[in-house]
Parts: sequence; structure tokens; C-alpha cells
Amino acid sequence: MAKVSFRNDYATLMHPNVYRYLEDKLDVINDAYGNDSYSQSAKQRIIEKFGLPETTEVYFLAGGTQTNMVAISYILRDFEAVIAASSGHINVHESGAVEASGHKILTAPGKDGKLRGEDIDEVMRHVGDEHVVAPELIYISNATETGTIYTKEELRSLHDAARRHGLLLFMDGARLGNALMSDENDLAFEDIGHYCDAFYLGGTKNGLPLGEALVLINPVFHHRFANHIKARGAMLAKGYFVGMLFDAILQDDLYFSLAKHANDLSSKLQEALKSHGLNPEPSPTNQVFVQVDDELGKALIREFSCEIWEKNEKGYILRFVTSYRSKDSDIEALDLFLQAQ
Amino acid sequence: MAKVSFRNDYATLMHPNVYRYLEDKLDVINDAYGNDSYSQSAKQRIIEKFGLPETTEVYFLAGGTQTNMVAISYILRDFEAVIAASSGHINVHESGAVEASGHKILTAPGKDGKLRGEDIDEVMRHVGDEHVVAPELIYISNATETGTIYTKEELRSLHDAARRHGLLLFMDGARLGNALMSDENDLAFEDIGHYCDAFYLGGTKNGLPLGEALVLINPVFHHRFANHIKARGAMLAKGYFVGMLFDAILQDDLYFSLAKHANDLSSKLQEALKSHGLNPEPSPTNQVFVQVDDELGKALIREFSCEIWEKNEKGYILRFVTSYRSKDSDIEALDLFLQAQ
Amino acid sequence: MAKVSFRNDYATLMHPNVYRYLEDKLDVINDAYGNDSYSQSAKQRIIEKFGLPETTEVYFLAGGTQTNMVAISYILRDFEAVIAASSGHINVHESGAVEASGHKILTAPGKDGKLRGEDIDEVMRHVGDEHVVAPELIYISNATETGTIYTKEELRSLHDAARRHGLLLFMDGARLGNALMSDENDLAFEDIGHYCDAFYLGGTKNGLPLGEALVLINPVFHHRFANHIKARGAMLAKGYFVGMLFDAILQDDLYFSLAKHANDLSSKLQEALKSHGLNPEPSPTNQVFVQVDDELGKALIREFSCEIWEKNEKGYILRFVTSYRSKDSDIEALDLFLQAQ
Amino acid sequence: MAKVSFRNDYATLMHPNVYRYLEDKLDVINDAYGNDSYSQSAKQRIIEKFGLPETTEVYFLAGGTQTNMVAISYILRDFEAVIAASSGHINVHESGAVEASGHKILTAPGKDGKLRGEDIDEVMRHVGDEHVVAPELIYISNATETGTIYTKEELRSLHDAARRHGLLLFMDGARLGNALMSDENDLAFEDIGHYCDAFYLGGTKNGLPLGEALVLINPVFHHRFANHIKARGAMLAKGYFVGMLFDAILQDDLYFSLAKHANDLSSKLQEALKSHGLNPEPSPTNQVFVQVDDELGKALIREFSCEIWEKNEKGYILRFVTSYRSKDSDIEALDLFLQAQ
Repeated sequence: MAKVSFRNDYATLMHPNVYRYLEDKLDVINDAYGNDSYSQSAKQRIIEKFGLPETTEVYFLAGGTQTNMVAISYILRDFEAVIAASSGHINVHESGAVEASGHKILTAPGKDGKLRGEDIDEVMRHVGDEHVVAPELIYISNATETGTIYTKEELRSLHDAARRHGLLLFMDGARLGNALMSDENDLAFEDIGHYCDAFYLGGTKNGLPLGEALVLINPVFHHRFANHIKARGAMLAKGYFVGMLFDAILQDDLYFSLAKHANDLSSKLQEALKSHGLNPEPSPTNQVFVQVDDELGKALIREFSCEIWEKNEKGYILRFVTSYRSKDSDIEALDLFLQAQ
Repeated sequence: MAKVSFRNDYATLMHPNVYRYLEDKLDVINDAYGNDSYSQSAKQRIIEKFGLPETTEVYFLAGGTQTNMVAISYILRDFEAVIAASSGHINVHESGAVEASGHKILTAPGKDGKLRGEDIDEVMRHVGDEHVVAPELIYISNATETGTIYTKEELRSLHDAARRHGLLLFMDGARLGNALMSDENDLAFEDIGHYCDAFYLGGTKNGLPLGEALVLINPVFHHRFANHIKARGAMLAKGYFVGMLFDAILQDDLYFSLAKHANDLSSKLQEALKSHGLNPEPSPTNQVFVQVDDELGKALIREFSCEIWEKNEKGYILRFVTSYRSKDSDIEALDLFLQAQ
Repeated sequence: MAKVSFRNDYATLMHPNVYRYLEDKLDVINDAYGNDSYSQSAKQRIIEKFGLPETTEVYFLAGGTQTNMVAISYILRDFEAVIAASSGHINVHESGAVEASGHKILTAPGKDGKLRGEDIDEVMRHVGDEHVVAPELIYISNATETGTIYTKEELRSLHDAARRHGLLLFMDGARLGNALMSDENDLAFEDIGHYCDAFYLGGTKNGLPLGEALVLINPVFHHRFANHIKARGAMLAKGYFVGMLFDAILQDDLYFSLAKHANDLSSKLQEALKSHGLNPEPSPTNQVFVQVDDELGKALIREFSCEIWEKNEKGYILRFVTSYRSKDSDIEALDLFLQAQ
Repeated sequence: MAKVSFRNDYATLMHPNVYRYLEDKLDVINDAYGNDSYSQSAKQRIIEKFGLPETTEVYFLAGGTQTNMVAISYILRDFEAVIAASSGHINVHESGAVEASGHKILTAPGKDGKLRGEDIDEVMRHVGDEHVVAPELIYISNATETGTIYTKEELRSLHDAARRHGLLLFMDGARLGNALMSDENDLAFEDIGHYCDAFYLGGTKNGLPLGEALVLINPVFHHRFANHIKARGAMLAKGYFVGMLFDAILQDDLYFSLAKHANDLSSKLQEALKSHGLNPEPSPTNQVFVQVDDELGKALIREFSCEIWEKNEKGYILRFVTSYRSKDSDIEALDLFLQAQ
């Protein structure tokens, strides 16, 4: 029998509702390259949900690294840089995609995976002359790579820093659903478009087989963006397919229900770990990191599918991720297992 | 009622068999990034069908422009070039994706959309010193952008030219099914891998919602190719999804049956046009180009979905494309329409 | 004894006046990176000579390929292209430098090495949607790669085409001195800045050991251009050195006298060739192309340093170039030699 | 009167011997693009001085940033990275030139501006899968950006780490003369080529108007390198000019005498500072960093040309640089000035 999986949030194909949505679309004739009614409908759902200006442009791309690279490389010239937290996905887990597109990432240590206004000030203290790259854009993830989220005050402060230094603000929303559905979240949907110049809503990690909706609010992103998508190899001939996927998952707020479900199971998972004397990093979203000793680590890895985040002298830091398809019984299995140790 | 469509071969979502294949996969836990059993199975189907060495690597990417850019930019250094026919897709319809990845395309006029050994000789006559880019790779499409196909003799001759000049040969197979299933085709499946260093098998234009299977035969393509895919933003987290799509469509040679179906309807379409005194370019595959006068052109465009390839002094050159979902009734509707003119 | 050389116009180090100018500068303390008084003086000389706005920016770079790449890559985004004649230096003799910086060159055959307004119209007929690169810039050379020059009418017409299509116009002036000092030239110095958005004045081919003065008139080139120069590796720490070189050669119009000298000797050379029954392409500048038969070709190559432009069935097309250091005696030697054949 | 300058080592044009060397070369006819006898002679001088294999290739480029970018971008593919100290010139003062050429820099804090074998081990601990860039090259500077130098033991240890991880080692030698002529240096000339795969010998900061000699020992750098130089805009038509410059300054070890002179005056400068109670960072080469209080800082900046390295709460860290043209009287002037405070 397959192990219970807490490996990641992209291990199962797609939510059944999304699958069923496609059933009667198999024989429909569609316009290509995203100029179809499903993409239009999905776009309108996003604009309405986030209270965005009607001039907002939305493009449906395949994956997160691609979306980051496409958005960032559109804005930056060859002497310009993007600022990110050292732990930012673009800095550590994208095989140098931003640099391969010709641009430097300037990093700041940040705090809990998040950039603060003061980090931006510090980075900007060192720039200015022609020998140093000129930052133009700030990249943040919400939820971050370690599952933390931005408070309204933090996002506002970062937005103010961006404006203070003439920078744009881009939010990687591969897990934006988890962030906004967190019990600890105090950001309104409208705040995202208010504070960010562009962001994306990730489908891959929340119930779609692929797809990220890139939302371009600031008109500085609006000149021939489709041309740029094509030049970076990211244009899908059957753009309507990803349009359909998003149209399906945005119906009746399914996207956000699924994210909330993953968060709820993460809370239960954290409770289960704590009830057995473990001490997970408190996580407001669906990623849970916990230090365990060597013996327990080995046992957990044997019984469950989860990720070894770090091997250290105390044993292991393991990452458990819940997703739209996680079940109460998954947590119960973990609970039983820990009880038996 | 929707117009009968001869617009292109990517206007409908996917073949029903592919859709049904996915149904019982919705809740399966998969390894990410292409390291899954479905991708493995699809890869083996390709290796067997084309009689390729077991060392062959196969990667499943999202679209054709992306696959061209990923394959070409892997091989070329910044001073190296790819040779293509002037009409090659990479030269005219990819928004400069190859150049955006840092490489020049050297073009030759070719003949009927095809490169010949003598074209390569001519291009190579002008290169050599450090002021001129150094070609390393030949890019061809089969079927070509205008629906023609390579004969065995032509492919062999091009392969010989490649070896003569120390070049690699890469085949864009966005419509490889149509080429190989053409009544006029004399290439065996084994010939593709025998004469080419790499090629791809296009899913987007033959029944899949997206997906191209990039087949890397020559080991010169095998060093950390996945790293390169990621760096170009082309890695899918749910790689197993495209693996499943190909596994589905390669079952029972469905892929090739669909291509044959499109070709057969193209033959009928050509017959219908000729029976009404029109003179389409003879096409061995599923794209048909026909010159019509101004009045007939306008009428056809009004009644059918097809593409204006060129507006000229004689009227229009129209492109009609058949696909896996074209029906006999589509051709009959066109026949009836032409009869009534 | 060394052969008399008509090989090229960059075979000797520098004009003696330039050398002598440097003598008393050896121990002067200068500001680096071009922020020095010599660069400032040279810039002012150019602004005055060409009647340019005081807002014009001038940067002193090392070589022609570098200057082309730096100027072009500053303006273009990844989905944008530069239009050039097929024979343009950037297209054939720069080892793909423009493409290595990420941009496509769209070519037109042109006429006599020159682009015409109608060539631009033709190129622009094929662009427009997101699948095709978007031209933003026209590249021309004056004098061209084959020694021809633009008339005022031709340049105006090209400028009009540029404005008609929303394109910028950039002039490669590696041999601008030769063009403007040609007996056939009808362009005023003021016309260059009037019709072009940017151009450069080449030093390498007219008496300097290196150096091209890149003149940026249109403010679209003015945002942090020095940052871009640095990012492309083209910033010189001792920028004042190239500033001095230009300051020296622009004194008393030495630059233009040298170009005129080269042109005058080219006229004499053409006369000499014709007086012996040869039929050089009429050249208004310092490059002369002449078809000779096989025997004469071999003899000329043995006795003189010149370039084999093409080996063909009639024998050879040879290129003879005169320069600032060519002497009457060089022509006389050629004349005597031809007489003896 | 001009201030006594300790601003940098590239503020004066060139050493008089270099200037005089050129005098009788003004009218010599040379082969272009580095294929000349002077470049050949300079290359041989370097090969002999450093005891390098005869297969070594040497290219003469214009500046340091360019040389770093050209060497690094030749070796790396788009998914590969170079490892550098955080303080490395390529990371902080090249306007993103390495990234603009498409490559990530992975940084380690290092110690005293130097990378250690253990730094490489630590960086390599985090790489391996396809989501993380693959390091291929280590970049070090000797002397470093802060004037420190590598001991033989340190270089050997770094070389061992490189071999252990399959990496190449590249040394930025913009100030290699100062490093090798330092009283504290224990590296033999032969050690450079023994431990490094490539390095350069900087001319700009040691008596030439421009020029860096890029020395490529490992044959992995030897395939069409000139083509790459051209593609990056770094090829000089009058390559013989930089060849002459290096031929001149390598005669009678002038290059190394000049570096030693700069170092000697740096020692005197450090003595002078210490004799007045100041506490400069001990420097084995020609860059001296000293913390001074606010008042003294302002006075020094007013009277001398030097660089403000950092403004901090204690006052200023000033950088004083000596060069080939520094004089004893410069130090005496500083000594007198400090005495008067």
C-alpha cells in the first residue's frame, strides 16, 4: 500500500470538480493563444474577487518558475536587478532562471522568509553609481517558502519602501490561496492589488494539473506582454485549456475552499505533533517544519512520504505538507504512528 | 451555430480517450518533476515505436516554441548558430525566442519549406573565421510549416551534410505524426532516430491539451538536461500530467491513427476543392493552401473558419487544416458550399 | 620589404598627431570612467561639429562591434528586433553579438548595401502579432560595408519610414568620416543628428588605435546608459584615454582631413585600375572592389596586401582599401605593377 | 595645484617607457585582430615568465569587467554558476555583467576577501539536483578587492577543493603584479598556472592605458575562444595595439618593478599613518584602508585625493591607493599634513 503522503502539495493530478468541468468541453472549437471565452471568464473572476481595475491584464502560464522568470525579465533591463529574500524561490530553487534571462538577484536576509522595508533600505544604501546594478523590482512570496505569511502592516510597509525607492513590487503567489485563507491572515483580497504591481495566483499547488494566473495591475507591464511570453517559450497554443482550469477552480470559490482545507489539516497536523511532545515551527499555512531526533526521523521517513529539509546534528528537520486532497485519516495515521513510538 | 472549422489543429481540447485515461488517476500520489511511472511508460513507448537506443532521454515539455528553444539553447554557445529554412517556425513565428536565448539563426531559402544538403554546403561556405557565427545545429520541421514532408533520401542527404560539416540535426516534430502517416511518406520510424540527433513528437497539434515529447538520442544532449529545462522555466512540477497524456495517446497507436485520420480528411478536402475547379497546392499532410479569387475568398471566410495565409492581387491564399476531430461532414459542408457558388 | 598594403584601414597604429598629443598627458591625474575633461572636450567638439542639442550624450567605447551591440541591446526588449540590410555588419561579421545579447535581426535585401524606406515598409508588413518579433530600431551603416553612402534624400526617406512605423534610427559610423568627406556626399553634418536617433563616429578605421564615439541624441537612450555600458563589459577605467584620442583627432578637423585623404587616394586608385582596363565598382569612399581574372588576381595577391572578397568562376573579386596613411606612392606602385602585366 | 592623489591606480595614462615603445611603431603595417607579432611576443613573455605550457592561449582584452565576463560566460552553460566571495568584484562592482551574460554567481562570505576550500565545500553542500544551479567555476581575485593576497597554502587548498568538486579555478589578476611582488607573497610564478585553469594579468591598474592579458591554460578554454570574444563585443580590430602595450611593459620585467614600487610606497604610507597614531588595516599590497575620525576624515578628503570607502559612526574609512607613478614626495606630503593636525 502506498505511504500516506505529506510530501508536497503537487502530488495528485487535479481536483475532481476541475476534471468534470472539462468533460463537456472536449469538442468545443476554441480560439488559440488565450483569446478564448474561458480565459476571459477566469480573468473576470480574478478581477472581481480581488477588486482589481478593469484594465488589469491576466495571463495563464504553466508553472511557477516560468511565471517568475517571465514577469521579472519583462521589467528589468540588463543593468537592473530584482531584490529578494535570500530564501526566495527565485534565488535558491529555480536553477538560475532569472539570471539565465540576464538579471541579477540582490538578496537580503529578511526575517522568517519575509522582506521588510528596512531590508530594502539597506540594499538601496549600496546602490547608485554605474558600477552597481540598479534595482527596479522587489520579489516576495506569500505564503513564503517556509510557510509564513505577510501581515497587512508588513505588506504596506514594503509597498511604502518600494515607492520610496522607485521600485515595483511583485508577489509570487504559488501558495497565495493558503496565505489568504490562513487563520492568521489579515490581508483583504483588495490589499493584494493595492500594494502589489503584479502577482500570481498559483494553480499547480492548489488543485490544478498545471497553471499559474499572472495578474498585471500596473500598466508598466502592459506593452506587448504576450509577445514577451512567446519570446520566453511560455505561450500555450491551447491557452484555453489553462483558462478552463482556472475558470473551473474559481467557481464557487473552490480555489479558496481547497486552500482553507489544506490549512485546516495543517493545524491538525501541528496539534498532533505537539501532542506527542514534538515542537514544530508554528505555521499559519500548509507547510510544517519539525525537528526530530535521528531515530524518530528515520522511522517517519520509512512510514510516511515527507521531505528531509535538513540533516543536522540533532537528527532531521522534516517538512510535512498538507494539500487539497489531504484527509483527516492522514493525520490520524500520523497520530497513531507517533503514539506507537 | 458555430462555423465548421478548418482553422488549425489545436482548436479542440483533447481526444476523449485521453480524457478518459485520466479519470482513475485523480487521486494517485505521484513523484514530481517527471520522475514518475507514467512518464517512464510514455518514454518506453516512444523508444520502442521508434526503435531508439535505451540510453535515449525523453522529456515532456509544454509547447513547441518552448521545446525548440530549450533544445537549441542547450546545444549552442553564444558564438554558435542554428541553420534553418527561411520559412522555419523558429525564424518567423516564435517572437525571437531562439535569439532571446542568445543565438543567431542562419537561414537558407531551401525548397518547399525543406532544407537540402546543398543549402547546408552553401551556408557553410561563408563561415569559418572568428567574425562569423559558427553553426553547430540544423533545424528542420517534418511535416514542414507548409505541410510538405521529407523523403528518406532527403533526410539522409541532410544527415550526410550535417556529418560532413560536423553539425547536429534536430527535427521539429510538432506535426511528426502527420508526416509519418502520410501516404507519400517513405521514412520508417527507425529512420528518425537514425538520421536525427534529437527530435520531438508533438502532442498539442494531435489530440493532447498540451505537451511535446522531446527525444534526445545523441548523448551530447544528456548532461544535466533537466537542470537546463528548469533554468528556462520549462520544468513542470506535475510532470506526470504530461507523462500521462502521452502514455494515453501512445496506447494502441492512437497518436498515429489520429494523424492518419487528419491526413485522410485532408485528401478528401483536396479532392473536394479540385472537383470545383480549384487548384490547391498538393499536400501530403493536413495543411492545404489554395488560391481563390476575391469573391470566393470572402465567401469562404464568412462561412468557414480558416486562415487567410496571404492577401494578394489574385484574391486570397487560404489555409485549411484538418485535425483529429475533423469529420466527413465538415468536408461535405465545404463541398456543398462550393457547389452552390 | 613589406608589401604595399591596401588590406584595410586599421593596419597602422595611430596618426602621429594623436601620438604627440598624448606626450604631455602622461603624468596628469584624471577622473576615471569617462568623467574627465578630455572626454568632455571631445564630446563638445562632436556636439558643435554636428550641430547637436546640448542634451546629447556621448560615450567613448573601444570598438565597432561593441558599440553596435551596446547601442542596440540598450533599446530592445527580448521580443523586439532591429532591422538591417542583409549585408549589414551586425548581420554578417559580428559573430552573432546582437543575438548573443538576446535580440533578433530582421533583414531586408536593400540596394547597394543600403536600406530604403520601402524595405522598412516590406519588413513591417509581416509583423504585428505576438508570434512575430516587434521591430523597434533600424540599423544602417554610412559608409556601408561596401563603401556606398546615403544621399540626403535616402536618409530622409528612411527617417520618414522610421517615424511612420514608430521605429528609431541608428547609424553605424565606423566609416562616417569617409561618407561625409566623399565628393558625392550631400549630407550636411547637421543632417546626421536630424535624421538619426543615435550614431557613432569611428576612430579605429580613421587614425586612432581604438575608439568609437557613440552619440545619443534621442533622450530615450539617456536613462543610466553608463550602467548598461558597464553591464556589457564595455566601460573603460581609463575612459579619459579614449577621450584624449578623440580630443586629439577632432582638433582642427584632423579626423575629417584624414578621411578625405583616404577618399582621394581611393579615387586615384580607381583611376589607376580603370586606366589598365579594369572595371572597379564605382566607390565614393575608401573601399574599392574589382573583378580580376585568375592570373592577375594571383599576381596582385602576391605583390600587394589586399583582401580576397570572393573567389568566383571569373577569377577573384579583390578589395582594396585606402586609409589615412596611404601614400601617392602606394598608388604609383600599383600603377607600375599593372603596367608591367 | 592638483591634490596629491591616492585615489586609485588608474588615474594616470601610461608609463613613459610604454609610450616611448610605441613611437617607432606608428607606421608599421600590422595584421589585425591579434594575429600580429607584438601580441605573439607579449604572449611568449607571459608563457616564459609564468612557466606555462606552450599550448597556453593568451588574449589581450580591454578591461577587467570585460575580461571576467568573457572568461566566465565562455565556460558556463545557462544552468551553471560561478562561485565567488561576497566581496568579489564580479558580485558587487560590475553592474551585473556576469548575470547579464546569463549566469548566476553563488557567493560565500570567505575571509579577508578570500575564498577557502571550506567555503567551496559549504556551497557545494547545497547543490546537486535540477532545481539548483550547478557550479562549474570558482572566481578569486589576487590581490583581492581589499588588498589581501593568497598564500601558496591557501591557493593549493582552493585548487584541491576545485578538483574535489569538479570545478575550474579562475583568477582575476587585475592586481596580480601587486600580489606577486608583495613582501608577504610566497607564491612562485609557476604556481599560478599550476593551480589555476585561467587567470589574467591586469595592465590597466599597473601602467597601461588599458589592457588585460587573459591567460587560458586549461584546454577546455581553447575551442574558438576568439569567436566568443567577438560575440561579446570584446575583439579589438587593432589587437596589435594592446599586444604592443604588453610587449612594452613586460620588457625587463618593468610590469613587476612597477608593481613592487607601488607596494613599497604602500608600506611607507602605512608607516606614515602608524607614526601618527592611526591604525590602518595591515596591507601586503597597494591598497590601504584606515579608519579616521570625522574631523581628520574631512581634512584628509579636502587635502588629498582618496576614496571614502565607508561613512560610519566613528567617522570615515578611507582608502589610499599607491601606483606605479606614486612618489616618495606624495608620502612625505601626507606625513607633513598629519604632523600638522
